[in-house]
Amino acid sequence: MKSKAIFYHAGCPVCQEAEQNVANALDPNRYDVEIVHLGQDRASLPKAEAAGVKSVPALVLDGQPYHINFGADLSALN
Amino acid sequence: MKSKAIFYHAGCPVCQEAEQNVANALDPNRYDVEIVHLGQDRASLPKAEAAGVKSVPALVLDGQPYHINFGADLSALN
Repeated sequence: MKSKAIFYHAGCPVCQEAEQNVANALDPNRYDVEIVHLGQDRASLPKAEAAGVKSVPALVLDGQPYHINFGADLSALN
Repeated sequence: MKSKAIFYHAGCPVCQEAEQNVANALDPNRYDVEIVHLGQDRASLPKAEAAGVKSVPALVLDGQPYHINFGADLSALN
């Protein structure tokens, strides 16, 4: 069974670069990668916050948040 | 041809967790992943700095630095 990976971003340049490189570098045989644009999909904000996401871009692997560089604080999207 | 991925860490708990999850999640068919412990391998510090690494843990993919969460500032290792 594949693990779940969720990549949260907000369309910022730092986000897009991380998406193209880090999110796309994950092993597709082991991870189902979901890309969530929190600027457009605000309904997903509580889920991201519950996973511990503080800023974007962030990658949640098996429920653990990994903040990758820094694009924007999550509070700026609320 | 595989791309080069270098995961820099310093043995800190944040580093180890990121190594086990993020570094190991990369697609082995596309990336040769090298793990560098900057606390033990100080000769690699200039290379990490030249790639733009400011803190550990960090992942350098195709020469681009991605800082993953925050364990320690690189200056603490110099």
